[in-house]
Amino acid sequence: MSRDKVFNYAAGPSVLPESVLRKAQSELLDYHGSGMSVMEMSHRSKLFQGIFDEAKARLKELIAVPDSHEILLLQGGATTQFAAIPINLLEGGAADYAVTGHFSNRAAEEAKKYGTVRLSCDTSDTNHDRIPTQSELKLSADAKYFYYCANNTTAGTEWHYVPKTAAPLVCDMSSDILSCPVDVSRYGLIYAGAQKNMAPAGLTVVILDKSLIGREPEWTPTMLSYQTMVKHDSMLNTPPCWNIYLFSLVLAWVQEQGGIPAMEQLRAERAGMVYEVLDNSSFYKPHARRDSRSFMNVTFHTPTKELDAAFIAEAAARGMLNVKGYKTQGGLRVSLYNAMPVEGAVAIRDFMKEFEVAHHV
Amino acid sequence: MSRDKVFNYAAGPSVLPESVLRKAQSELLDYHGSGMSVMEMSHRSKLFQGIFDEAKARLKELIAVPDSHEILLLQGGATTQFAAIPINLLEGGAADYAVTGHFSNRAAEEAKKYGTVRLSCDTSDTNHDRIPTQSELKLSADAKYFYYCANNTTAGTEWHYVPKTAAPLVCDMSSDILSCPVDVSRYGLIYAGAQKNMAPAGLTVVILDKSLIGREPEWTPTMLSYQTMVKHDSMLNTPPCWNIYLFSLVLAWVQEQGGIPAMEQLRAERAGMVYEVLDNSSFYKPHARRDSRSFMNVTFHTPTKELDAAFIAEAAARGMLNVKGYKTQGGLRVSLYNAMPVEGAVAIRDFMKEFEVAHHV
Repeated sequence: MSRDKVFNYAAGPSVLPESVLRKAQSELLDYHGSGMSVMEMSHRSKLFQGIFDEAKARLKELIAVPDSHEILLLQGGATTQFAAIPINLLEGGAADYAVTGHFSNRAAEEAKKYGTVRLSCDTSDTNHDRIPTQSELKLSADAKYFYYCANNTTAGTEWHYVPKTAAPLVCDMSSDILSCPVDVSRYGLIYAGAQKNMAPAGLTVVILDKSLIGREPEWTPTMLSYQTMVKHDSMLNTPPCWNIYLFSLVLAWVQEQGGIPAMEQLRAERAGMVYEVLDNSSFYKPHARRDSRSFMNVTFHTPTKELDAAFIAEAAARGMLNVKGYKTQGGLRVSLYNAMPVEGAVAIRDFMKEFEVAHHV
Repeated sequence: MSRDKVFNYAAGPSVLPESVLRKAQSELLDYHGSGMSVMEMSHRSKLFQGIFDEAKARLKELIAVPDSHEILLLQGGATTQFAAIPINLLEGGAADYAVTGHFSNRAAEEAKKYGTVRLSCDTSDTNHDRIPTQSELKLSADAKYFYYCANNTTAGTEWHYVPKTAAPLVCDMSSDILSCPVDVSRYGLIYAGAQKNMAPAGLTVVILDKSLIGREPEWTPTMLSYQTMVKHDSMLNTPPCWNIYLFSLVLAWVQEQGGIPAMEQLRAERAGMVYEVLDNSSFYKPHARRDSRSFMNVTFHTPTKELDAAFIAEAAARGMLNVKGYKTQGGLRVSLYNAMPVEGAVAIRDFMKEFEVAHHV
């Protein structure tokens, strides 16, 4: 199936802006008359340093990263940060973890290796269909930080407020970064695997308050030490150059579209279309509670597993790919990240309506 | 300068085969009629699993990885392995480290965090211009492993024998993997950052004897646990998909060229041309001793720093890029990895002769 016949609703890695891919394609063998691909450049060259600096500058501008915070471009994905965060920030003490889904649970499990983990909330009793309110959060007086995951890709829920805590906020924004405004100054640490809203897989962005660095124990693996990575501006060793280049192109694309306000408007428009079908249907059952709905990942079921499977197969046959729910969650999931054209939301909405008419009993 | 006017002698990231780049370019927006870029694919899709499995199968075939050994495709570069290796294999005990250059020294320093490091050799007294002989190596009876770096990118030296040790061999082959035959069965662990001979930066290949897994302590960061990564076939989390795809394309290219024997012949031909100039010159001074010379990185000086700088500038003006020596080493370095065409060796050889004639006093 050709590219113009396909919409890719994968939860990550996921669709990238077509204009970004075309630019990368056109420059692939020869970046700006250098005679080299970005994949072939020394990371110590002025040429690559320019790409690297521009990427950081674009991110800094787009989400207004204050000078109090440092931007790191790392490897290893969010799962590496599940360990790096407690190693760097816990000092063997305690932290509060809000468990609202699969990945925040894994983060909490990993942190237990390095100190005391207190569950500020745990929504597993209702299969993570909700985000707790501020008053429901249990907060410890001695917490080194409060950890949460802003958007739960597997459950399809999203925090629509910033928790008020005495401890520094640490937030996994892997699946909704750049899709809505964020006041970076309120966070001790923000991180995001890049493969949903920002770049191809293999890059992790960490934004951290400089006052938090330098607390890691001596046995910290060098590559997991925030202090070391800050000191070397993320280039202690060879960074994932191509991924950083694509990251920069995506950031430029977001700027061209009108920045974060435009992304916020578009995500509301796209997700709104799909939720509208769910709200007007007795066929589909949405997973997330209304007040906790994600703008990035819409999760739902049809009446039966057989119909879920039929939905997935029929959608794929029409070029609407990757709408299967996460393995632990089942059902269906439509991911609508920044790079998803509005036409992609229209297409899945129309298909959902059609499928309901055909299969409703 | 256009691509056909340039030779890139960078030490890594470095030149990739042009046919590989052209294939990646042609498939960039639509991989095999999927309507998606490899950068957009779910890593859990059959399509990506096919790419992943093919990459592993090609490597297994090319260097005959026995069934006793597992292939891991990881993130974080060699520097992450500097920590992962002792964390996974040292069990708080001792290991022998052969320090023959910048990176083996860094590996030894990192390992000290996790146990006792015994220097089997240390060639820093002569600025790492040599590889010790077997009889010069000090070997401890209680070593959990013997660590060495097969090719020293910064010094321009290479081990031309496999050390005989009672302890399992652990080897950093970042800069000469796939350039010459290797008997994998003799190694406990082989690893290589991919950005020199194999793929764009952001991928690290680890090949390890399965009998060595499962020794890491409980506090091991999950992403650094070989046991966990083996269990999840390197996909505990999202792998660097694009890098793995390019890796597979490069492996196919090596196969097409005639495999490792062809690579070995070519490396001898390329490096031979440059060493011949050095051996017939009273102007250039080679850094490495004759018996320890690297086939990948040729290191040398002109009579003065000023002439070194002039060499670099004049070479660059003619499209011969990145011949500056490593920052701690100074002088000049010509890297001639697998993807460097023989014409690239001819070009730098001819330029060296010309430069000598012009500047010799």
